[in-house]
Amino acid sequence: MAVEDLDEAVSTYERLFGAQVELRGRMDDQGVEAAYLLVGGGRVELVTPLADDTPVGRFLAKRGPGMHHVAFEVDDVAAALDTLAERGAEVLDSEPRSGLGGHDVGFVHPDSIHGVLTEVVSG
Amino acid sequence: MAVEDLDEAVSTYERLFGAQVELRGRMDDQGVEAAYLLVGGGRVELVTPLADDTPVGRFLAKRGPGMHHVAFEVDDVAAALDTLAERGAEVLDSEPRSGLGGHDVGFVHPDSIHGVLTEVVSG
Repeated sequence: MAVEDLDEAVSTYERLFGAQVELRGRMDDQGVEAAYLLVGGGRVELVTPLADDTPVGRFLAKRGPGMHHVAFEVDDVAAALDTLAERGAEVLDSEPRSGLGGHDVGFVHPDSIHGVLTEVVSG
Repeated sequence: MAVEDLDEAVSTYERLFGAQVELRGRMDDQGVEAAYLLVGGGRVELVTPLADDTPVGRFLAKRGPGMHHVAFEVDDVAAALDTLAERGAEVLDSEPRSGLGGHDVGFVHPDSIHGVLTEVVSG
């Protein structure tokens, strides 16, 4: 979820859903500060841009706060990216890169999945 | 996920992610045809509007296909809606209503959750 104010958004998820912060940190290469929240048996990632001229900054300017991407947990991100490419998806990362907390991550272009930016992430 | 063509979108999720259709049907009161897909340990709901003049039809016209709402599974939708209202959320359904497959569902206004339309749904 792309948000304007990470502290305020974390507080909302704690208050409404009893969410617990699992990880929080800056990812300078992606231009975001992010928090992984545990919400029941799932995870919600909140991201806020470090500057306007970043992908998430431009997303917020254009669309406002809201859902930014969905992530599926996989055992092996490199293998998942290869499989997705073989199955015709436009993979944005040919190799995994490092996400929050050292998780491997990789992204698939929204044009391949009916407008949904989709991430694969290691457990 | 709001999509233009449900058959095509189901086919994409089957091909890329090995998704399996759990349920599919029309919800005339909401103006959508929807499919629940099993994707790994989670579910993805694809919805397509039955007419342009419906909430999802207007969403597609304004924003294009993409993520429409997020849902959290709860044991008791009525209790969850009450709790969310007590905690200050703007609840759109004061009582549960019937969703796809007879699941109880209820929605919370996106203004309460940083731009994210949020559903609670029975398991």
